[in-house]
Amino acid sequence: MLAAIVGEDRVRSGDYERAYHARGRSYLDLLRLRAGDLSEAPDAVVYPRGTEEVLAVLALASEREIAVVPFGGGTGATGGVTAQRGRFGAVITLDMSDMDRLIAVDPVSQTAVAQAGISGPALEKALEAKGLTLEPQSCEFSTLGGSIAQGDAGDWLIGAKLATPRGLIEAGPRWKGLLLGSQGVLGVITEASIRVRQLPEVSDHRAYLFRDFASGAAAVREAMQAGVQAAMLRVSDAETTRFLSAFRQVGKSKTLTMRLIQHTLDWRGYGERPCNLIAGFEGKTKTVSFARAAFDAIAKKHGALVRGRVGGDQWKKTRFATPYLRDSLLDRGVGVETIETAAPWSRLDALYAAVRTAIESAIAQHVPRQGAKGVVMGELDPAYTDGARLRFTVIFPRLLDGDVAQAQAISQAAHEAILANGGTHQDVHPLGVAAGTSELAVAALRAVKAALDPKGVLNPGTLLSD
Amino acid sequence: MLAAIVGEDRVRSGDYERAYHARGRSYLDLLRLRAGDLSEAPDAVVYPRGTEEVLAVLALASEREIAVVPFGGGTGATGGVTAQRGRFGAVITLDMSDMDRLIAVDPVSQTAVAQAGISGPALEKALEAKGLTLEPQSCEFSTLGGSIAQGDAGDWLIGAKLATPRGLIEAGPRWKGLLLGSQGVLGVITEASIRVRQLPEVSDHRAYLFRDFASGAAAVREAMQAGVQAAMLRVSDAETTRFLSAFRQVGKSKTLTMRLIQHTLDWRGYGERPCNLIAGFEGKTKTVSFARAAFDAIAKKHGALVRGRVGGDQWKKTRFATPYLRDSLLDRGVGVETIETAAPWSRLDALYAAVRTAIESAIAQHVPRQGAKGVVMGELDPAYTDGARLRFTVIFPRLLDGDVAQAQAISQAAHEAILANGGTHQDVHPLGVAAGTSELAVAALRAVKAALDPKGVLNPGTLLSD
Repeated sequence: MLAAIVGEDRVRSGDYERAYHARGRSYLDLLRLRAGDLSEAPDAVVYPRGTEEVLAVLALASEREIAVVPFGGGTGATGGVTAQRGRFGAVITLDMSDMDRLIAVDPVSQTAVAQAGISGPALEKALEAKGLTLEPQSCEFSTLGGSIAQGDAGDWLIGAKLATPRGLIEAGPRWKGLLLGSQGVLGVITEASIRVRQLPEVSDHRAYLFRDFASGAAAVREAMQAGVQAAMLRVSDAETTRFLSAFRQVGKSKTLTMRLIQHTLDWRGYGERPCNLIAGFEGKTKTVSFARAAFDAIAKKHGALVRGRVGGDQWKKTRFATPYLRDSLLDRGVGVETIETAAPWSRLDALYAAVRTAIESAIAQHVPRQGAKGVVMGELDPAYTDGARLRFTVIFPRLLDGDVAQAQAISQAAHEAILANGGTHQDVHPLGVAAGTSELAVAALRAVKAALDPKGVLNPGTLLSD
Repeated sequence: MLAAIVGEDRVRSGDYERAYHARGRSYLDLLRLRAGDLSEAPDAVVYPRGTEEVLAVLALASEREIAVVPFGGGTGATGGVTAQRGRFGAVITLDMSDMDRLIAVDPVSQTAVAQAGISGPALEKALEAKGLTLEPQSCEFSTLGGSIAQGDAGDWLIGAKLATPRGLIEAGPRWKGLLLGSQGVLGVITEASIRVRQLPEVSDHRAYLFRDFASGAAAVREAMQAGVQAAMLRVSDAETTRFLSAFRQVGKSKTLTMRLIQHTLDWRGYGERPCNLIAGFEGKTKTVSFARAAFDAIAKKHGALVRGRVGGDQWKKTRFATPYLRDSLLDRGVGVETIETAAPWSRLDALYAAVRTAIESAIAQHVPRQGAKGVVMGELDPAYTDGARLRFTVIFPRLLDGDVAQAQAISQAAHEAILANGGTHQDVHPLGVAAGTSELAVAALRAVKAALDPKGVLNPGTLLSD
């Protein structure tokens, strides 16, 4: 049946295919994969090539009551790629990786349409060939559809084609809130319209050093509220700053090491806990100069040491805890969890402190030996006029016996602290804390799901499940 | 029953109250009111004072199957305030005008929470007392809740309390698309969280004159895509420019008239059809100077004559066709219709031309006497990086016999041209044309309504009605 829709060679049920698609790449996923747990592997993996094929597969799956799990980049940070069979006899994974074309660009309106399975870097490359680029900080690791389904899409999303068991929805702005973070439970995103920009004349990244996290955050807040045009403003807390600095000194040239030592000396005046900030400015040469000067003035007012230009893509390295690194750290007995939240500026400092403390005590309670410590690293990014996102990367000695419980205890402690301090979960924007959490709101979203997926075949067990 | 919830004096069923709440202030509403048609007046008008009272009224109405029409500023541009009894024996209007408090401000996060019945000017005044202001171009005439329900809310909306017959929803970012333009069919917006700003150091409005509408639009597009920070950029087409200029010369001082003549002379070089553009810049002094200089350069590149500073609030007068003026024009035998749409930049010029032509021929076919003409005035505002909104104000000699059919024919012609040329309807943002229009999308939205308002008492006959 499936083969009749997509072709014989595009339905695969070999062991490797099934195992590869069994889980995402979250820490818990990795632990379970390492434990050899493939109980949730799909029965087959289907590789569609277009919206029509996806619609046909979904209609068939709905008719036969086969569960369907959409699979993009496979990072599945929140469990979106794992099939939960429940009452379903069969589960198929829809691997979107062959739907990877840039379909159209409209250079006048600075918009583009692409298939959902295209990866962030591939999309960037295809756009660059036309003199265009993605909005700053769009999907770095995921596929286009995956970042929308995970809720990582920002202001760059205009609309999408949503294939459902009951047909296609051209999801415009009115649907944006429903698509973001929907994790495939309402339908499969097959194409998306996005905002793009002309390649900037100048792309300039600068580093600043602050006395503490709060003053870095205050500078970012003031810049956002004054309308300073920055492509990125990222504050690393003291642990992140220290950790990254140590990281960089390994295996580098003598010159670089000398420079780092110089920086370390510079930091002296900044106390024991200096915090690094990376500011990126992109656009016309004049606009970039103006914005950089405006940010310099604000940063200095908040006591910053201006460290100057950050060479090449060095700033990208501050995002070291990618899904790809987790595997190698695990091999070395080190666990890595990532926790994200967002809050209005007025709650941000308290939220940061509370989440850090909660994670530290959870680690202390779940360590392989007395006195072993973890590292809790916080970063603020991106920022808005009314608030910002916080991302914590937690590195801890892995319990060999009970590693799943250990990871769960750490997440749980962090999430309790987030809720108690007015942070948001899984919402793209600050103040969304209550969104979709009340019983009535969930009932309304379930009604949407029932209208689009009456048999409940889409990603059963994820979100909205009964 | 209602009196037990809100108090005796807050349930009113006098003739004046009922007539006042019978209709909105759209052109068709006014025609029907003038024809003495009060068939759709509600049976009673209820004035709640808080969210709890609204919830209790809705629960009661749902239990007794009484239709409920929320009423904000009463502009009801798209028919949202008119009760359509249908199968309902009784209709009540919920007049939100006593829910007019600014509840809280968070100056650190630059956010505020206000009750939904507060008017735009009252909200602005309350914020100004705290050194804050609304985002540029927020609700000028409506109430806060009304502008959200009509879909006029922009980026300033964070979330809202939505009272429904089944209870309260704290509607965060995920719900924003459902709230905007929902016209009260999903629930009654009782409070909203919004983004505000510090009062700007400088507020500077400048006028420019372009050779034609397309070059004005091209300058605005270039400015938006280059990231020029303008609080407003509004292009008037030649008819609007000519009409407003004539308007302004009536009853003004000699000096002003001389200046206007000078301007008219200046315009000569700009051909027969010069188009005015108003650019507003707000914020820190330096930022305003930088943005203004950047826009000047772009405007000149597109052949503009820089006319200089616009005094006081003069630019606001370009928005003359408010609901309030309609009544006096009607007295003089003049009909006024407003038509709004939006499109990506690549379609904007063609859309503008097609809608103008369609309206002009509809007027020609429906005039009181051979040769009588109307005036079709177009304005572009606001603009985004990927597109802009167009607003047409149509002034025409009113048919005394058949004025309703005349107005309908003009609207119809405009909307057909909009659809044929890729413009959007009732969507806040370009490219939303298909949003909520397919049968399946409507089914999904109806499912949301059924979950929140199972008896269908909220604004029956408006949107989503079966």
